[in-house]
Formats: sequence, structure tokens, C-alpha cells
Amino acid sequence: MPTGAQILINGLVDGGVRACFANPGTSEMHFVAALDETPELRPVLCLFEGVATGAADGYGRMTGHPACTLLHLGPGLAGGLPNLHNARRAATPVVNVVGDHALHHKRLDAPLESDIGALARTVSAWTRRTYYATELAGDVAAAVTAATGPPGAVATLVVPADVSWSDAGDPPPAARPAPARHGLVSVDAVTGAAAALRSGEGTALLLGKEAARGAGLAAAGRIAAATGAKLLCETFPARMERGAGRPAVERLAYLASGAVRQLEGVRHLVLAGAASPVTFFAYPGQGGALVPQGCAVHTLAAGAEDVTAALEGLAEVVGPAATRVREEAAARPALPSGELTAESAAAVVGALLPEGAVVVDEANTSGLWLPGATAGAPPHDWLTLTGGAMGQGLPLSVGAGVACPDRPVLALVGDGASMYTPQALWTQAREGLDVTTVVFANRSYAILNLELGAVGAGAGGARARRLLDLSGPSLDFVALAHGMGVPAERAATAEEFAALLKRGLAEPGPFLIDCVVPPLA
Amino acid sequence: MPTGAQILINGLVDGGVRACFANPGTSEMHFVAALDETPELRPVLCLFEGVATGAADGYGRMTGHPACTLLHLGPGLAGGLPNLHNARRAATPVVNVVGDHALHHKRLDAPLESDIGALARTVSAWTRRTYYATELAGDVAAAVTAATGPPGAVATLVVPADVSWSDAGDPPPAARPAPARHGLVSVDAVTGAAAALRSGEGTALLLGKEAARGAGLAAAGRIAAATGAKLLCETFPARMERGAGRPAVERLAYLASGAVRQLEGVRHLVLAGAASPVTFFAYPGQGGALVPQGCAVHTLAAGAEDVTAALEGLAEVVGPAATRVREEAAARPALPSGELTAESAAAVVGALLPEGAVVVDEANTSGLWLPGATAGAPPHDWLTLTGGAMGQGLPLSVGAGVACPDRPVLALVGDGASMYTPQALWTQAREGLDVTTVVFANRSYAILNLELGAVGAGAGGARARRLLDLSGPSLDFVALAHGMGVPAERAATAEEFAALLKRGLAEPGPFLIDCVVPPLA
Repeated sequence: MPTGAQILINGLVDGGVRACFANPGTSEMHFVAALDETPELRPVLCLFEGVATGAADGYGRMTGHPACTLLHLGPGLAGGLPNLHNARRAATPVVNVVGDHALHHKRLDAPLESDIGALARTVSAWTRRTYYATELAGDVAAAVTAATGPPGAVATLVVPADVSWSDAGDPPPAARPAPARHGLVSVDAVTGAAAALRSGEGTALLLGKEAARGAGLAAAGRIAAATGAKLLCETFPARMERGAGRPAVERLAYLASGAVRQLEGVRHLVLAGAASPVTFFAYPGQGGALVPQGCAVHTLAAGAEDVTAALEGLAEVVGPAATRVREEAAARPALPSGELTAESAAAVVGALLPEGAVVVDEANTSGLWLPGATAGAPPHDWLTLTGGAMGQGLPLSVGAGVACPDRPVLALVGDGASMYTPQALWTQAREGLDVTTVVFANRSYAILNLELGAVGAGAGGARARRLLDLSGPSLDFVALAHGMGVPAERAATAEEFAALLKRGLAEPGPFLIDCVVPPLA
Repeated sequence: MPTGAQILINGLVDGGVRACFANPGTSEMHFVAALDETPELRPVLCLFEGVATGAADGYGRMTGHPACTLLHLGPGLAGGLPNLHNARRAATPVVNVVGDHALHHKRLDAPLESDIGALARTVSAWTRRTYYATELAGDVAAAVTAATGPPGAVATLVVPADVSWSDAGDPPPAARPAPARHGLVSVDAVTGAAAALRSGEGTALLLGKEAARGAGLAAAGRIAAATGAKLLCETFPARMERGAGRPAVERLAYLASGAVRQLEGVRHLVLAGAASPVTFFAYPGQGGALVPQGCAVHTLAAGAEDVTAALEGLAEVVGPAATRVREEAAARPALPSGELTAESAAAVVGALLPEGAVVVDEANTSGLWLPGATAGAPPHDWLTLTGGAMGQGLPLSVGAGVACPDRPVLALVGDGASMYTPQALWTQAREGLDVTTVVFANRSYAILNLELGAVGAGAGGARARRLLDLSGPSLDFVALAHGMGVPAERAATAEEFAALLKRGLAEPGPFLIDCVVPPLA
């Protein structure tokens, strides 16, 4: 008779789950033991839960299929919540498996007892606790379905230890729920958007979620060419396909002032998979909505609707492109020399970015020049900080590396951001992932130095600025990487950075570059 | 006119809060700026929220007064939840300050928006969101009162950005809530416990929370001497005073088999600040309660009751000690030589532990010999993993170091445990804390190798065991410490460990020892 744990793993594999990012504890030992019998499910050990959840996010973004996590009770889930928050905002499919005490143990209020459901519901579209091993087969199938969407979502399955260790009986062949289908496309929304785009007034098409890639992105390019609409993308797309030969799309700026400029003169804004744009934070005396006064907002497709099909339909309605689709021209910056700054570092990345690269971007201020410097590089994917929860970059790189073993992964992360989840480097090393990590070490929470003034809190005195300062002592990322088994070097000039980036991209396995740059002025 | 942020900080200082463990973001910038005007509140930057919350726990355990945290919205709070879970289990006073979006921004569902209240309530005895700057003075006073208890608790105050930046008016002199008082002592409970202890049957007194220290512990010693009761302490006390000259108390074992032996023959178990003992986890075919069949359980004091006064009253009732209080005799192990093992390392610690040391213990398997080896060392405090949420040790050491600048802090942590919150080392360095950290590097989640068999999951195949194995690559804690500015060396023999521990304890500031030991057989 199979145990619940075996049924659970079989159900995951039946549902197409192929990777398990795990930080297990005692309650999960039967799951761990059952992994030996199921080679289809690759276990990947993470030394902190936030690495496991971020890796599952990265894996799901790159494959479109859910990975699972394996977390230990409420505190284990809690550690993983920030990156599950990011996954929720990215609409990434994730099957989040959380072990719990045996049911008969829960009333004893043992030290690890806590409200797992309350935690899970803050990030999950679907949460269920299984009470009987015989019901696990159905529950895991439902979890996979809920995670897969559309839209993709975090589905949390809470598995008490006794459910894992009990005989699950001989389950009948799983009555698998019918796979969910994309919602139909609204014809009214398509014709409404077409009318708006043909209005002769300023128009823009704002892409989000899956509209930022594949057939949806291609259709968006045709729509823009046919109508003259400006092509924009949400500030933090889950995964954007970009580079030479792909439709030229501007990401909305993080800073409100930049986004306001990008939207200036737009009288009709068509949303394709994106929400109506708002500022990331509030600022005194400013509204948070970015849509200009007098601009009408039209939703082409949202939520569970099929945004790709809607864009393709809209492209047909607005007719053949009058002009050629505006594609990014192949163009790379020249390799710079001399001082290493955020700007020259971006030029190095643009000059060397290989075709097919998966770029993970959590360089929140040092990354300012990266989009421009890489726009004409060979085609690549760009993954961003969808939910604003720090510590996403390095874990995403783990998941992308597991998902795409044949593609180079380039993680571009700020020093502040990297320190929330540095343990990801160890998993890069253990799994031999081909990830090149660049830490932009400006020795500060530079984004907060900008925000301190932006929110009207002044320049800050010595004590305030020390809270935003990462020097004293300076972090030595070469030593940190070595501590976790990742080869690493420091770059102090643009030439050194270029040489190290070439090396990192050329060599298999992980490599880290401590890229020392000044903070933005 | 003061801003809300200034009122908040003033209220914290008025409430006796002297340390703020912070990982701020944009919504907290006014709080950060206001720190410049209030030198009484010491800001301590932590690079990950779990460090901030664990440090606040350590500070509160050592001072009895709350520190505050400063966390950034839901994801920032989430990262701090595991150590708040431990603080909750320790009944530590903590004022947990969480910034939120401006109220008018919340409806926009900006990327960082999430259900902060749901997260907070899983660990907090008291949670409130302030809606008006003019109400902050009252809310912060209420938060301090709620945190202070008794019993101590996590009190979470959610502060929207606009509440921080708005004029708070001229608040009237704060109508401070009357400080909470300990609950009265139940005379019935005292006389009932006295009768039980005099029954002539096997008796034991189980100490928890504040009964493990100070006047309560002293009274417990007298009670044991007068009645012959066995003196036990909960498995994971928040802070235990122990060492030569203090009453000899056995901690209940983590492994059920050990705890069962300790409780064998006990017919009356008197609880003083402790819960009725249960196993940490459930195991197939075993009940979780540890109280022997036929043993009556008597609660002397619990929750908000004054356990110290109850113990003192009980000591009076049971009369003068017929025999001398059984105090730990001053005794240290000899300094061992040769192979470095968990056992010989414990002997080194016992031989060298300085008087007044604050020991933070998160060495879950390698620490097995530590209690025995240090029982007769000069008086010291011992802080343990109250809630079972990993990653507590290093952050606790930060808080203890800030709380007790004149006492040596010794953090004894397993390699697995240390990797949940390694960023604490950076804060040790920045603040120049006199913390000596010993990482017992057995290259495995050794406790899970034990549990794999204990839960009946077998010995595990290759894939299972790899998930519990921390080699490949081995973590280099010397490099990790150097990366965060902490001097460090590796010990491979007992002599080397002794020399390094002497050095770490003698030198001011932080020092780390990578103590390579084999896992338990």
C-alpha cells in the first residue's frame, strides 16, 4: 500500500511537476524518503525557505509549469512568503507544499504550532489542508490545477505528517480535474480597443503578464505598427522577451516622474494583461494613479482571460500593419574602458549578453542603464521584481537555471537586495547551475537614499543615513561566494568587469562578479 | 508641529524602548529621518528582517524591556515572522513596527500591497493599524503596554506612510495606560501544589518562562530542597540562569525517549510558568503528551500570573529546606586534546565559559553535550530555540550583544541553523558587538538524519539523504564571516578550538570559529 507521501509525489509527477525546491523538516521526512522512488521529480535543497520559493517562481516563469516547494510548518512557510508574494504578483504557477504536525498533535500546541492557513492565504489563490491520506490524490491534482490556472497562481497544500505516513489505500486512477481553459475573449473588449486605437488621439497599449512574450508580444507589435499606438510594458513584468528583432517595447519607469512622461498625451490606454498603472509608493501631495487626466482606460483582457488570443484578434481587427513592425535593431554598445560605474557596467552587459540568455534583474538603482544598454542585444528573456519583495534575484536564478539547463542565466543584483537570500549561491553550486551573478556593490540602500528625499523626509542626518549605508563594514561578495562554493572575482574597472563577465558566461557552472560601482549621485 | 513619525519615536522612547532593529523601506523613511532627533533610540541596521526580529527577541529576553523593530510592509514582516514566532513562544516583549502604504494608496493594489494584519496576527498578542497621526501617541503607548505584558508578547503596530508624514498636532501629554500588573497568585493553586509535593509520591516541579531565573528559580530551589521534588525546566526556555551556585535544574530532553525517562515515576507534576510537556513532533503510533499515566498535573501559575510570587509563596508554605538547596557545584571539564567532536568541543566550552556569559544555543545536535559540560561553569545565562523556527541563534546574539554590552556573548550554532540568518554577522561587525560565534560544522542537517528514522521513514536512499546533507559544496564559515566583516578562523582539533575560543572571548568585538565536527553517529 502506498503511503500518503508516495501518493503525493506520484500526483505531483502526474501533474507535470518535475522539480521540488525543498527545505524540509521532521514533518516532511516521509516526503523526502519517497523521493527515492520517483526519479521524475528532481529534489533541489535550499538552505533557506526564501530561496526555495523564489526558485519555484523562477522555474515557473521559465517553463510555464509549476514546480513544487517543500516547506516546514508555519515558520518555514513564513520564511518563504516574500518570494511567494512576488510569485503571486507574477502569476507564476507554484504548488506550495507545506508539512504540518500530525493532526492528533495539533491540539497539544507544540512549539512549532501556528496558523499555517492564515499565512498561506495571504499569497495563495488556493489553500487546502488534507485530512485523510485517501484524499491526497484528489487534493494534489486540485492543487496542480489551481496552480496552473489561468492565470498561474500559488496553490498551497498543507500536509499533516500523519497524512504523509499513513497508508493511502489503493487510490482509484486519479479522476484528474479537466484542465482549466483560458477564459474566452470578449468581442466587445476587442472592438472597443480597436475603436480607441483608431481614434486618432494619442494611444498606448500597455502589456503585462504573458502579453510581454511570444505570440501576444508579436501581435502587439503588429497592432502598434497598424495603429501608431505606443507600446508599453508594466514596470515589473514577470518575464519579458526582448532584444534585437523583437517588437520595441518601453517598460514603464519605476519613478513616477518618468512614467508620467511616458504616458503624457495618451488619451486612450489599452490594457493587455496589465493593471491600470499606479505608482509603486505614495508620495505626499501626489495621487497614486498614473493615468493622465482625461485618458480613457480600456481593458482588452485581464485575469483569467486569454490575453494572447485577444491581442491576436485585435491585430486582425485593426488590419495589416501600414508600416513595418518596429523591431529593435541589432545593436550593442561598445565595450567601455576606465571607470566602473552603473552606466559603464550596463554597457559591458549590453556588449556581451549572449543570445538566449535569461536575465534576472534585481539591480534596483544600479540597473538604471541596463534596459537601454541591452535593448538591441540578441534575443533574451528579462525577469523582474514583480512584487517588490526584496531577495528575489538570486533565488530566481536558481529556478531559471534548473528550468533552462541549456541557456545562460545572468543574475544582476544589487548588494542590498542580494543579502536577503544569499544562500541561493550554495544551491547554484550544489546543482552546478550555469548562472553568472553580478552583484552591483554600491555599498548602500541607494534606492532609499533617493526615496528619502522623494517622500519629503529631507536629506537625513547622520543616524538616518547610516541606516541606508552598507559600508562599515563593506560586504565582500567574493568571500561570501567562496564561502558557499561559488568561484568569484572582483571587478574594479570596466575592462576587468568585461573580462570577468566573458569568463563567467564562457565557463559552465556558477560564477560571481563583485562589481564595485559608486551609488547614483 | 511634529510629524506622526516623530510622535511614534517619542512614544517609543517614553515607553522605555531604547533599541530599534531595522530593515526599512520607502514607507519608513520618515521614521528613519526622525531618528536623528532622538538619540535615546539606538537604530541597528539589519540586512534581513529575520535578523531584526531575532535581535529584538534577544534584546527583550535579556533586558525584560521591549526593543522595537522597523519592517517594510507585508513582505518585510513576513521575512521577520519565523523569529517573531520564537519570540511569541518565549513571551518576549517586542514592539513590532511595520510600515504600510499611505491609506489612500492601499486601494490601488500596488505591487507591495498584501494583508499585513493577517500576517501580524499569527505572532502578535496585539495588532493595530493607526489611521490618524493624531492617534499615534495613544497607539504607541498601547503597543508598549501590550508588549510589556505580563506576559511579554509581540505587539504589532502598522503605520501607514501618510500617518508617519502627517502633522500629528500638539498631542496632549500622553495619557499613558496604567502599566499592566502581574495577575494575582492563586492561593488554591499554591496550597494544591504544596499538598501534591508533600504527598510522599514521586513529584517534580517543571519551570518555564521567568521561573527559570532570578527569584523564581531561587524559590524553586528551596521548594525542591524542602520537598524532594525533582527540579525540571522546559526543553526550550527563553532564558535560563544556570551554572555554579545556582539550583541544579534538568532541562527536559528534546527526544521523547529522554523526556520519558526524566518523568518516569512522577505522580505529581507541578507547572510553574511551563505548559504540560508534549513531544516536539508526533511519531507514528505514539501519543504526544509526555506526562506519565497516572500522573496528576497541577498548575501553580501560568500565562499572566505571577509565577515568581507563586513560587516564593509555595516555598514559604512547604517550609524551610530540610536539607541545603542542591546547587550546582563549581566544576569544569578539563581541556580536552586531540579529535574535535561535539563532545570534546562541549568540554572546551565548559572549561572556558566566562562568568556572566550570555550563551545563545542553536546547536541542535552538536549541542547535545553542552548542558552537561557547562552545568558547573561560573554563573551564566542560556537562551534557547523556544519556537523551533530555525535561524534564531545568530540574530539572538545581536540582540543580546546590544542589550548587554558588558557581558560576553557566546553563540553556539549548527551549520544548518546558521544559514537561515547569516546576515546577523554583518550587524555584529557594524555594531562592534562582543559576540563569539561557534559554528558546529557537521556538514548535515544531522537532526533530520535522526528524525528520518524516528518517524519510521527508513534510512533514506541516496536522493533522500542528499537533501539532508550540507556537503557538496561544504560551507566555509571563515570565508562567510570575512565576507561580512567578522574575523574568523577554523578549528580542526580540540586544542585549536580551545585556543580560538580563548582568543574570541578575550578580544573585544565579534569573532567566529568554524568548528568542524563529525555528525552524531
